[in-house]
Amino acid sequence: MKSDLDALMAKRKLDAIMVTGDGHSNPPRYYLTNGAHVTGGYVLKKAGEAPVLIVNGMETAEAAKSGLQVYSYNDLDYGALYKSLDGDLQKTTVIFWKRMLERVGIERGRIGLYGEGNIGNYLALSKLFEAEYPEYELVGETGMTLFDEAYVTKDAEEIERIRSVAQRTSAVLQATWDYIGGHRAEGETVVKDDGTPLTIGDVKRFVRRELLDRDLEDDAMIFAEGRDGGFPHSRGEADMPLQLGQPIVFDLFPRELGGGYFHDSTRTWSIGYATPEVQEAYQQVMDAFDVAVDNFRPNIPAKSLQEAVQDYFESKGHQTTRSHPSTDVGYVHSLGHGVGLNIHERPSLGHLAKDMLQVGNVISIEPGLYYPERGFGVRIEDLCYVSPNGELVSLTDFHKELVLPLRNT
Amino acid sequence: MKSDLDALMAKRKLDAIMVTGDGHSNPPRYYLTNGAHVTGGYVLKKAGEAPVLIVNGMETAEAAKSGLQVYSYNDLDYGALYKSLDGDLQKTTVIFWKRMLERVGIERGRIGLYGEGNIGNYLALSKLFEAEYPEYELVGETGMTLFDEAYVTKDAEEIERIRSVAQRTSAVLQATWDYIGGHRAEGETVVKDDGTPLTIGDVKRFVRRELLDRDLEDDAMIFAEGRDGGFPHSRGEADMPLQLGQPIVFDLFPRELGGGYFHDSTRTWSIGYATPEVQEAYQQVMDAFDVAVDNFRPNIPAKSLQEAVQDYFESKGHQTTRSHPSTDVGYVHSLGHGVGLNIHERPSLGHLAKDMLQVGNVISIEPGLYYPERGFGVRIEDLCYVSPNGELVSLTDFHKELVLPLRNT
Repeated sequence: MKSDLDALMAKRKLDAIMVTGDGHSNPPRYYLTNGAHVTGGYVLKKAGEAPVLIVNGMETAEAAKSGLQVYSYNDLDYGALYKSLDGDLQKTTVIFWKRMLERVGIERGRIGLYGEGNIGNYLALSKLFEAEYPEYELVGETGMTLFDEAYVTKDAEEIERIRSVAQRTSAVLQATWDYIGGHRAEGETVVKDDGTPLTIGDVKRFVRRELLDRDLEDDAMIFAEGRDGGFPHSRGEADMPLQLGQPIVFDLFPRELGGGYFHDSTRTWSIGYATPEVQEAYQQVMDAFDVAVDNFRPNIPAKSLQEAVQDYFESKGHQTTRSHPSTDVGYVHSLGHGVGLNIHERPSLGHLAKDMLQVGNVISIEPGLYYPERGFGVRIEDLCYVSPNGELVSLTDFHKELVLPLRNT
Repeated sequence: MKSDLDALMAKRKLDAIMVTGDGHSNPPRYYLTNGAHVTGGYVLKKAGEAPVLIVNGMETAEAAKSGLQVYSYNDLDYGALYKSLDGDLQKTTVIFWKRMLERVGIERGRIGLYGEGNIGNYLALSKLFEAEYPEYELVGETGMTLFDEAYVTKDAEEIERIRSVAQRTSAVLQATWDYIGGHRAEGETVVKDDGTPLTIGDVKRFVRRELLDRDLEDDAMIFAEGRDGGFPHSRGEADMPLQLGQPIVFDLFPRELGGGYFHDSTRTWSIGYATPEVQEAYQQVMDAFDVAVDNFRPNIPAKSLQEAVQDYFESKGHQTTRSHPSTDVGYVHSLGHGVGLNIHERPSLGHLAKDMLQVGNVISIEPGLYYPERGFGVRIEDLCYVSPNGELVSLTDFHKELVLPLRNT
């Protein structure tokens, strides 16, 4: 968690960290600035000291909401520098980096570079900066980075924020269930009052409004029907009508408006009725979900849950990515992942992952079965956290009924 | 424009380009994949050839919408590789990059690296990759990159998409004007039917719904009242009531739902009445807008418009960032910027910019005056394009009235 940052820096022998990059979605900046909505600039943190924020003069009012010390570019004479270099942005940036590092007392050493932004731009700037100022080393990290390691365990405030997103998401699931259920069918097609088909586009629009009404924003929900649901990341076609007996994989993972914490949950709904084949697969996925939960204990390897679920699915005759690494059918993905300011965080619950499960984790549990050529996919997902007493507690308070009945049939 | 990519690669002596990074907002990937909603993977383009898309097996259905050739990770035996390396993600990635480059016939040479993503991750991976495979050089770009240069001129299809976003944005401006105007005041405060104040949060919520109804998504609109409007990037406080005679800077820059083209426009509204001081500043900003438009001709330096506007504002006694590089009051920013898949693109209309204006540009024209200590800011912004016959044409079809009357007063 955030209070671990200095220890995590020491472990990496970092004298400082620099977070930069772009606006809307920049989890490490959000994490350090307590959600202030700055769209550029830098966060510098010297080992053992509080972070400092350096932003364009136009953003100082917003930046002040971080509670951090804020310098504007003008405080560091950015404009005069840029002018003196005749508008050469590269040279200006390189000298400006030096200037701001010195301002916060970082005179040399290893500086971890973080943030979401233009990859090539920072690759080029780092090389220029290191060539000009060899007393600094800019260090990138791949794999389990400092922030990944910090994110793995959430503090009580973070859990409460995610719980709130979870409650609002569950309310949207209920509203969507009721919305679809309020329609009628003509033949096998769900239709609106005027007799035109209710489409996936209609439903997604409804869902987005319901999210907004609860101060949540959508990040490309999945609402994939029939064969499309057999491809785990197919989003669903906007113009496709909802059909009776065609299972829908509805994976909704909104976050706090403006780029905050996520919740992640999936339900599979079959309108009016479910075919015996889908019922059977659904029951197996429900059982797999229980296998995962029943096998949970704190301080075990995360992969042990995935292995238990793979054992179960394989015993029922399904391929898995363990038994068949290149399979596109059966159980084709990992059991889950951490969720926080990123929709995918550590720990990973893949069968090759080395992460451990521990108190403070927020993880999705999401077994599924995928058979596009048989016209369906099924997935069930709750978001859970590991409570201080080591229990796995679901944050997703919404029922797991498969068949969504139409009230006007 | 997109058809210039090979020429732009040749100019940089690039044998290929690789676009990678994350999901929602990744303009270079969107540009090359024609808007397919893939959340990871790679686009590779060898000089002179069409781009090729390499994605996780779960995303092949979505990737196919790009119209490009698609390989799944499984086609390149990613899973077996990852397993054979016992889940070492760095090593797997480095070898996988080599494998996919060879698959599309890129055996060696200079490869431009682009995309929006985790800066430190790609910094580290590039170093590892170059160390392992010295026949490749991964090239980052800062300043005017290949994509920046391509984006500068829009083709007819792009103009039409931006025009559609502009029309829908203007409709939202009208709806918001009408929504606010439908309220009444108690004293100086705008109130709802139940007598409670109409807040900035209420208005933003209304605006977001109106945007969604038109398949647009908000990217942190500015709706900043009174003193807050004097800080150009202050977003506005959600709990602040709307007050008569307090000018509101409303900067709305939505884009196509799912991460497409933007439109950018700003209006300043003063509810009920405007003070003489604000009226005067507003008229000067309107005049500055006309100065910019009147001075436009194709194939002139972009900065010449900014200089004309600075001349005008300085003649009226205001500080500018030319006369006072560190000023926070007066005219404190550039006249405008390109808009496309990014809210800020080239050309830049700053007074130190070296960009030229040309046919196919889509640029904002947005003069403003900022006096937070006097309790106001004023900005007017239209999005314009340079038509094939060299005219500057506004895409923002919404009136520029300052005073927003309440109908129920």
